[in-house]
Amino acid sequence: MKKSALQKARAAYQPKLPIVLTGAVKAVTGNPTESVADQDEIKKLFPNTYGLPELKFEKNSTPAPNKPINVGVILSGGQAPGGHNVICGLFDGIKKIHRDSRLFGFLMGPGGFVDHKYIELTAPIIDEYRNTGGFDIIGSGRTKLEKEDQFDKGLEILKELDIKALIIIGGDDSNTNAAVLAEYYKKINAGVQVIGCPKTIDGDLKNDQIETSFGFDTATKVYSEVIGNVQRDCNSAKKYWHFIKLMGRSASHIALECALQTQPNVCIISEEVESKNQTLQDVVNYIADTVARRAAEGNNFGTVLIPEGLIEFIPAVKKLIAELNDLLAAKAEEFAAAGDAAEQRQWVIGQLSAENAATYESLPLGVARQLTLDRDPHGNVQVSLIETEKLLSEMVAKRLQVMAEEGNYVGKFAALHHFFGYEGRCADPSNFDADYCYALGFNAACLINAGVTGYMSSVRNLVKPSVQWIAGGIPITMMMNMERRNGELKPVIQKALVRLDGAPFQKFASQRADWALNTCYVYPGPIQYFGPAEVCDQPSMTLRYEHQSK
Amino acid sequence: MKKSALQKARAAYQPKLPIVLTGAVKAVTGNPTESVADQDEIKKLFPNTYGLPELKFEKNSTPAPNKPINVGVILSGGQAPGGHNVICGLFDGIKKIHRDSRLFGFLMGPGGFVDHKYIELTAPIIDEYRNTGGFDIIGSGRTKLEKEDQFDKGLEILKELDIKALIIIGGDDSNTNAAVLAEYYKKINAGVQVIGCPKTIDGDLKNDQIETSFGFDTATKVYSEVIGNVQRDCNSAKKYWHFIKLMGRSASHIALECALQTQPNVCIISEEVESKNQTLQDVVNYIADTVARRAAEGNNFGTVLIPEGLIEFIPAVKKLIAELNDLLAAKAEEFAAAGDAAEQRQWVIGQLSAENAATYESLPLGVARQLTLDRDPHGNVQVSLIETEKLLSEMVAKRLQVMAEEGNYVGKFAALHHFFGYEGRCADPSNFDADYCYALGFNAACLINAGVTGYMSSVRNLVKPSVQWIAGGIPITMMMNMERRNGELKPVIQKALVRLDGAPFQKFASQRADWALNTCYVYPGPIQYFGPAEVCDQPSMTLRYEHQSK
Repeated sequence: MKKSALQKARAAYQPKLPIVLTGAVKAVTGNPTESVADQDEIKKLFPNTYGLPELKFEKNSTPAPNKPINVGVILSGGQAPGGHNVICGLFDGIKKIHRDSRLFGFLMGPGGFVDHKYIELTAPIIDEYRNTGGFDIIGSGRTKLEKEDQFDKGLEILKELDIKALIIIGGDDSNTNAAVLAEYYKKINAGVQVIGCPKTIDGDLKNDQIETSFGFDTATKVYSEVIGNVQRDCNSAKKYWHFIKLMGRSASHIALECALQTQPNVCIISEEVESKNQTLQDVVNYIADTVARRAAEGNNFGTVLIPEGLIEFIPAVKKLIAELNDLLAAKAEEFAAAGDAAEQRQWVIGQLSAENAATYESLPLGVARQLTLDRDPHGNVQVSLIETEKLLSEMVAKRLQVMAEEGNYVGKFAALHHFFGYEGRCADPSNFDADYCYALGFNAACLINAGVTGYMSSVRNLVKPSVQWIAGGIPITMMMNMERRNGELKPVIQKALVRLDGAPFQKFASQRADWALNTCYVYPGPIQYFGPAEVCDQPSMTLRYEHQSK
Repeated sequence: MKKSALQKARAAYQPKLPIVLTGAVKAVTGNPTESVADQDEIKKLFPNTYGLPELKFEKNSTPAPNKPINVGVILSGGQAPGGHNVICGLFDGIKKIHRDSRLFGFLMGPGGFVDHKYIELTAPIIDEYRNTGGFDIIGSGRTKLEKEDQFDKGLEILKELDIKALIIIGGDDSNTNAAVLAEYYKKINAGVQVIGCPKTIDGDLKNDQIETSFGFDTATKVYSEVIGNVQRDCNSAKKYWHFIKLMGRSASHIALECALQTQPNVCIISEEVESKNQTLQDVVNYIADTVARRAAEGNNFGTVLIPEGLIEFIPAVKKLIAELNDLLAAKAEEFAAAGDAAEQRQWVIGQLSAENAATYESLPLGVARQLTLDRDPHGNVQVSLIETEKLLSEMVAKRLQVMAEEGNYVGKFAALHHFFGYEGRCADPSNFDADYCYALGFNAACLINAGVTGYMSSVRNLVKPSVQWIAGGIPITMMMNMERRNGELKPVIQKALVRLDGAPFQKFASQRADWALNTCYVYPGPIQYFGPAEVCDQPSMTLRYEHQSK
């Protein structure tokens, strides 16, 4: 297999471990824990794994004699930079426990576990993937692991391979399912430990115990690199407004981090839009005002960052989508029979509540129509198909026309559009993510050796140099609360949205007026691996501001 | 102004100069030159600057006493990484000639020259921009400098500022205009030298004398970084075909270089499509066949690189566009009055020649309609608005449906789309471009000192370490031939298209069958500035293969 020069050079990088994990360790046990909310319900649902103590690893003077152990690993959900290093750390960790330990990787996500598709991950394979991006070592998938027959089916292959511990690398949903699986295996005395690892570029799996999920650092650095490049182009040509949509539907951490790194003229934060009960037109007016104020100073150019999930956070649009989902599920045939596009539109308006009909009529024709067409297998609107960046620039152009007629805008408005997502999910991990992921995997091996189940691998103190990081385990039930999902109340890990009272947002909010009017672009450039520490080893600004505020 | 850590670290980089330029130099004169073609016509149009000799700089034992000189500089056309370093090299070069030399930058391109908008580029300003991307130091613009009244208007400000030499940094058109300006100033004895610098990310300004234009190296490395990341994602999820359009309308050098760096499953080269007289459907069939052959092996994923200019290279589409431009210019009102979209379509089909009508009918409805709508200020179809990546994937999907019905395809086809362009034009220059640009600018100062005009700054031997580079000047008329542009025969620098008998294309062609069926992705990763030389200092593969074949 042909490799680039960087692939070859990067293969030699030795990720740094927390000093505590470099020798023999002992697990120090804290007090029993409680879930963040709904303690009674969670406790009832997890009788065997609720209330476990936090664990922290400390140096041990005498290494314990250890036996070989067979371990399975699953990559679950969307790719995130560093996944390979979790697996490499895990491999090195179980080999350190005993050189006859073996690691099995289930193929293409949880589906491979249920269907018994796997490979053994041997040293030559592992060495091919050290410090690389992507999940291609075993692939990933989105099969949800949540039913007992799946658990039983998986247990067959675990027994066959004599696997005593399963590591699930995934986001909040996958780790929720890891906890359910741990509880089930404990209940039936399956003799299999289940450990989770916090993965997601979206940054929405974090809490008092988990400082950040892996992949967020690298992905936001890649997006910030290309946003910076686009901003430099914007500031050179001085004739375009660039509308840049960023991946991440359920929270705006990515957009916020990129804004902190690049200082665009506008960045929309979905959580703020929702909290202020803003309409789509409010968002449009805000952008148009910024365009007009810059134009008044002769600057007919700028940049706007838009989180992919914006549309779903706008309260009025959210209500409209909910009613449309119900309406079109109930009366699909009547809708189809209503006639051509214009007649279908009229039919929809007639059926909707007055409030939602008004929202529907306020949307550009194309978007309104899209909301009534493509539906996912559950019959829901496919919001991800809406090109929010084009929708916004189109509405901004219309608004500017009105403002021009009213004498409130003189300028030229030309827009270009970008969507950054797939560019960052499989990038080579930054030094931070390479170290963090390797530590998470190595630490997971220590948790296996400590005999626990239902824990998430935890590495903390991340703003400090990696040797000072703190390693241990957090009971997953501790992060849970009850939430309604698809109409059912379920125990889930609380999703971390952008906190409007948090330090990262506050920092952004205190500077955005300056960034809007003046041109304060910062150009982060590409991720560097070999240079000075201040260039190569800095964690995300989100993490740094959150840490400073503690 | 806030700066990123990389911006700060990179500011300290000292670009390497060819060894010959580090001390006192003398210009060694070669034989008189001829233009590449149409010698009589070119000679007649450039009586004062035709036939000049090539120049090569060599070390001089005794530095000549020098006087201060005032120089003007213009950035012309699209941004390219390294433009700032050309200006920094020029600044350092004229300061080395005499510390009282002064540099003036005309603002926002040739327009600033004609309109007398400029700033003096002093040391503090220059130091802010060393080794940075973008053209924001003075901005760029697309005003064409080709009329004598513009030349006269510009001369006023040159006289006012006592500027004795003008440096034009631009692509083939801008350098053509530089030659015309040099000839004019020579003719009227204006006492102003004009020197060009070869800029364009497109890579189509090169010839026997100019090995590459600056910016191509960095831009293609940025595109290859993100293509590599997308490929890693593709190979991890194994469920999408990624259609990736790459900037560059007039030649496919960018797509070819990126293909050599990343080894995608498919890369279309416009020059080959044209040379083989292929239709759009031929291109679609080729992609669909590749999809089907991969699907037969269970691989329902892949990557396709598409040069932005593809559509205009397809002979049948080119003919259709030409007739449509004439037709709609002549009968705009009749078209408008033909009725709704369907009726207008029928009207167009009725008016076109049989051959072009057939091509028109073979296009997807949306694209066909687009060809009759948006027009540029000259009344021409705006081909750049056609989303070729979506057009192709839509046609491939249709073709696969037919193949499935015929029993020739079993698989799933889901496509994602990307366009990479603005991400690369203003990236921080690679070490190669940082050095090359600095040398081009410094060398331009030497050309000024040598008293010549109508030359392009030339730095050669680029696959060798930069200290071994050869510096000199090439008479621009030497690169010219006569071509029809907008209906008129004009002297222009011959544009360098991808040569199908050239080493880069041959290398690609010899491997693409393997890349198509097997998954041979290479992941170049981000540009590195501080690491080992084999990672940081390699020129483009195009340049390396071209050099090897010499």
